[in-house]
Amino acid sequence: MITYTSATRQNAEEAFEAALAGDLKRVQKLADYTFHMETCDEEGNSLLHYAVRGGNLKLVRFLTEVCGLDPSWANKALVTPFDLAHRQAEAEGPGSNAAEIEAWMALWCGFDYESCYRNPILRGMYPDPSIVRVGEDYYMVNSSFVFFPGIPVSHSRDLVHWETIGYVMADPCWAKEHLGPLEGGRGFWAPDISYHNGWFTVCATLRLNDDADCIQTQFVSRSRRPEGPYGEPVIHRVAGIDPSIFHDEDGRSYMLLNRGARIMEISEDGKECLSKPQLIWYGWDKHGPEGPHILKKDGWYYCFLAEGGTGMGHKITVARSRQLMGPYEDCPYNPIMTQKDPAAAIQCCGHGKPVSTPDGRWYMVYLCSRYLENKWGMLGRETCLDEINWTADGWPVVNQRKGPSYMAKRPLGTSYVQKASGLPYSGWLCPRTIDGSRITVFEDGCLQIRGEAMDLNDRACGSLLVKRQPDFNFTCEYEMWAPGKDGYQDAGLTLYYDENTYIKFGIKGDCLFVEEYVDNAYIRRQEGKFVPGTGPVFLKIVTEGLNRTFYVNQEKFCTFEGVTSICSEGLKKGKRFTGAMTGVYNNGTNLICWRQHRSI
Amino acid sequence: MITYTSATRQNAEEAFEAALAGDLKRVQKLADYTFHMETCDEEGNSLLHYAVRGGNLKLVRFLTEVCGLDPSWANKALVTPFDLAHRQAEAEGPGSNAAEIEAWMALWCGFDYESCYRNPILRGMYPDPSIVRVGEDYYMVNSSFVFFPGIPVSHSRDLVHWETIGYVMADPCWAKEHLGPLEGGRGFWAPDISYHNGWFTVCATLRLNDDADCIQTQFVSRSRRPEGPYGEPVIHRVAGIDPSIFHDEDGRSYMLLNRGARIMEISEDGKECLSKPQLIWYGWDKHGPEGPHILKKDGWYYCFLAEGGTGMGHKITVARSRQLMGPYEDCPYNPIMTQKDPAAAIQCCGHGKPVSTPDGRWYMVYLCSRYLENKWGMLGRETCLDEINWTADGWPVVNQRKGPSYMAKRPLGTSYVQKASGLPYSGWLCPRTIDGSRITVFEDGCLQIRGEAMDLNDRACGSLLVKRQPDFNFTCEYEMWAPGKDGYQDAGLTLYYDENTYIKFGIKGDCLFVEEYVDNAYIRRQEGKFVPGTGPVFLKIVTEGLNRTFYVNQEKFCTFEGVTSICSEGLKKGKRFTGAMTGVYNNGTNLICWRQHRSI
Repeated sequence: MITYTSATRQNAEEAFEAALAGDLKRVQKLADYTFHMETCDEEGNSLLHYAVRGGNLKLVRFLTEVCGLDPSWANKALVTPFDLAHRQAEAEGPGSNAAEIEAWMALWCGFDYESCYRNPILRGMYPDPSIVRVGEDYYMVNSSFVFFPGIPVSHSRDLVHWETIGYVMADPCWAKEHLGPLEGGRGFWAPDISYHNGWFTVCATLRLNDDADCIQTQFVSRSRRPEGPYGEPVIHRVAGIDPSIFHDEDGRSYMLLNRGARIMEISEDGKECLSKPQLIWYGWDKHGPEGPHILKKDGWYYCFLAEGGTGMGHKITVARSRQLMGPYEDCPYNPIMTQKDPAAAIQCCGHGKPVSTPDGRWYMVYLCSRYLENKWGMLGRETCLDEINWTADGWPVVNQRKGPSYMAKRPLGTSYVQKASGLPYSGWLCPRTIDGSRITVFEDGCLQIRGEAMDLNDRACGSLLVKRQPDFNFTCEYEMWAPGKDGYQDAGLTLYYDENTYIKFGIKGDCLFVEEYVDNAYIRRQEGKFVPGTGPVFLKIVTEGLNRTFYVNQEKFCTFEGVTSICSEGLKKGKRFTGAMTGVYNNGTNLICWRQHRSI
Repeated sequence: MITYTSATRQNAEEAFEAALAGDLKRVQKLADYTFHMETCDEEGNSLLHYAVRGGNLKLVRFLTEVCGLDPSWANKALVTPFDLAHRQAEAEGPGSNAAEIEAWMALWCGFDYESCYRNPILRGMYPDPSIVRVGEDYYMVNSSFVFFPGIPVSHSRDLVHWETIGYVMADPCWAKEHLGPLEGGRGFWAPDISYHNGWFTVCATLRLNDDADCIQTQFVSRSRRPEGPYGEPVIHRVAGIDPSIFHDEDGRSYMLLNRGARIMEISEDGKECLSKPQLIWYGWDKHGPEGPHILKKDGWYYCFLAEGGTGMGHKITVARSRQLMGPYEDCPYNPIMTQKDPAAAIQCCGHGKPVSTPDGRWYMVYLCSRYLENKWGMLGRETCLDEINWTADGWPVVNQRKGPSYMAKRPLGTSYVQKASGLPYSGWLCPRTIDGSRITVFEDGCLQIRGEAMDLNDRACGSLLVKRQPDFNFTCEYEMWAPGKDGYQDAGLTLYYDENTYIKFGIKGDCLFVEEYVDNAYIRRQEGKFVPGTGPVFLKIVTEGLNRTFYVNQEKFCTFEGVTSICSEGLKKGKRFTGAMTGVYNNGTNLICWRQHRSI
């Protein structure tokens, strides 16, 4: 996809206009001489998006069959030509041009509109996915960094709908000791979940601050139940990141670590290291090789790596060997997953793990990023799903090497969702640990925090509850009240990235304010008078991309435009690998309660 | 390959030093934590180049088998670790460490050192190759632009050694009329050679000046003998570039043209267009799709394209269909040939055509570029050869998708070379046409030009004879004399790109001079006194990359450093798709003769 520039705009606009008019002949002529077929408008709409609106099936077929444009290719808002055809068909009814186009697209894509799923499957900060299947149940873990409870375990039966069912690290005391001192962006990196002999084992890098004497350590904990509780963890002081566990058929167990794929033998329970790590495959791209996973299949050891760094150019590669220790032969089709188009809606695809379905098909979960204005990664890294195709010569490639899909056929007919029950703090998170004596999440959804007179920039501050920001556009609304007599003392809502970058929308005495903090000082502030009523106060934040609008008691208070500070690229400091969160805070000393009106 | 920067230099130098010392343990440790395996030094030497010199086979095997470094990967001077091992083994003798390393590398690579060939197979300006096999003979054509004789036909029996045997356009009158008015860089673009029913047919775009009313026309000429003479050409006024001819099994014939693959039916002799061009496949990359070729094999029509533009990011892609007219399905392994590493010695790989051997293997000839200092393309685009591997699901990929090879196993045991005889002007070229009444190339190699008092910047000037510059470093030396009495009147040697950019090393009266011309004026000049002797004068130019040193009668006259004007990137004007040439010129009016002492 080329977003058009002033130089190409005229040709592009002519082509888009012709497509919108359903003018096949004119589009054919432009295709011959002036129009680059990959050109998209500023919203990422391709010529095919326009052609669908033009309603000429012949033109749609020409652009698809001859020019290779894809009905399932999304614009920047993740809207595909297939979506447009479906919407238009619904509006115009059976027999309409749009209905014909939709029917033809279903044939071309190989799935009905109703039977597709969308990427990313997990939106907001769900990076570094690892997955395992046990029977008909799939379990996934993702990086959680310093957020507590740590390392969410999600469950699915259809690979598409996921529900967090528990956490590997739910012990506030352990978390206080180990995560408490850490800067934001450290903590649990790239966990792996495996299942063997009745045990779910989760390992992860516990990444410490840069001044630690061993900054990379490997955390291992296990449980007989995927949702936990997980047992007392062991910490291996072995450098490397992205551990994963592989149980070979001969009964021996191994841990893999970066750089490249290094392997060391471990005890079956993961608690003892039995050898030193030894490099078995350095990678294909040879730039930032990490995230190793071994899969044994059909007599081959397949070694998967994430390469190219977790930003643009990220990719998944594979090699194989008849022996675990190698030598490994590069897959001739590497990279088996990457995004080649720097302007596409889903970027930075890599760091994946394969999983099979009960009927023998294979899928890959992997991370991606989406950017606002092609540069602001606000949501952090998310999780995608695509089918693995095995080539006739026995190599796995993902989504036929087309890069990430935007819509694809659902893997399984079922769309069973296990509703979580008894999830600690109902899915709310707090940096580092949660002090249960001060924080309560009630079953009816009420949040209650007794403050400790500590501001959000303090690593020790534990007076906030947040959830992942789920998308670029969303609204969160709460009523807030103080059950005691002492009103509000710097409490309200927060848009939070880490202790260096966050926004407070709060009330301090009779002052209503919004403050955008970067590196311990606010860079933008709006204040107004707060007149307390008798009941609770209603606070609402409407997020539209980089713009955040703040409402109090249904009245607009102010808008902050171009809020980039809580994007990963918003500050060059530390490790900014997480994503924007949203929730409530209490920097005062009294007891504050919130009830959420719009769920996120 | 990452050329090291100041930031990575220390780690890199430590690693190179360890490899040179044969220190496996230290290299392993560096591989784990600090050294990117793709890092090369400024000459493009990898860690494996150093390790060969270190003489430790275990280290060589570690770097190859585990880290994926390649014994046949070349530095910027096209020297591979295998080369180094071979040279060192020759120096140290059998039983030496180097001999062991060479023997192991031969096993790993799958060929002995003696049985390999090197890319590019045709060096200097041989772009846009097209190939055909007839029995055991291979014939290739390349673009010749405005140079006359036009469209060289080369012959080989081993796909590696090539000899120009003739030209498709050897008629000076036709050339004067059609090529005479053209700016440099126009003329014959991307010819195709095919063979059918006893006829060799060559087609090419005849690209006219931008002010022509139809700037792209298609030239077709045929002959029963590959070396010619070719019959009276026909010119089709059908826009597009990169024509190729496909004869289908049903007896119908087609011409393909860009953009994408457009196809029109033509008469069997190529002289009549029977339909309008119709787009059948726009391409995979959708950026600059050109150079279409159709291959029918095993019931499939394979459509090959060059995409991404002829510079960095150039690539070959393929799609296939059961019907000639499509729809075509993209190869899931696209691009099937490209250079992914922007610092590698061979760049811009694309625009290829497949050919089979008599025993059923397949090869691709394709174009590439080599750059000085990563940016100066002096030699123009050259021709490479690599094997096509057919995947188990019937797709062609080139050199296992590893990009261009630097050394590979020779396709055929024979290395038969047909020495050309009777080649017009013994392979010397002149822009646009040659006036045989003024220019003679004698059988003993003497060159003779009667001048016409016209300078090289004049498009009408035909008083020069040039050949392609064969490599970055070479020497050319001539004796020059004037058989009559009137001495030298602005005659000598030239380093020539086109009428806008050239260098003269000549004699005018008693003045010896070097002048570097850009756009009709010299930008650099050195002059000295010329004292005529009784015999001829000896003129020599030693070229070392961007530096040119000029000698007269074995004495150094001067050096011009950083001569970038006669590179394709040396001037932003017109179409600079050719390459540097070298030869002789006579801008005076008298008769000058040259005898070449060092052949090029």
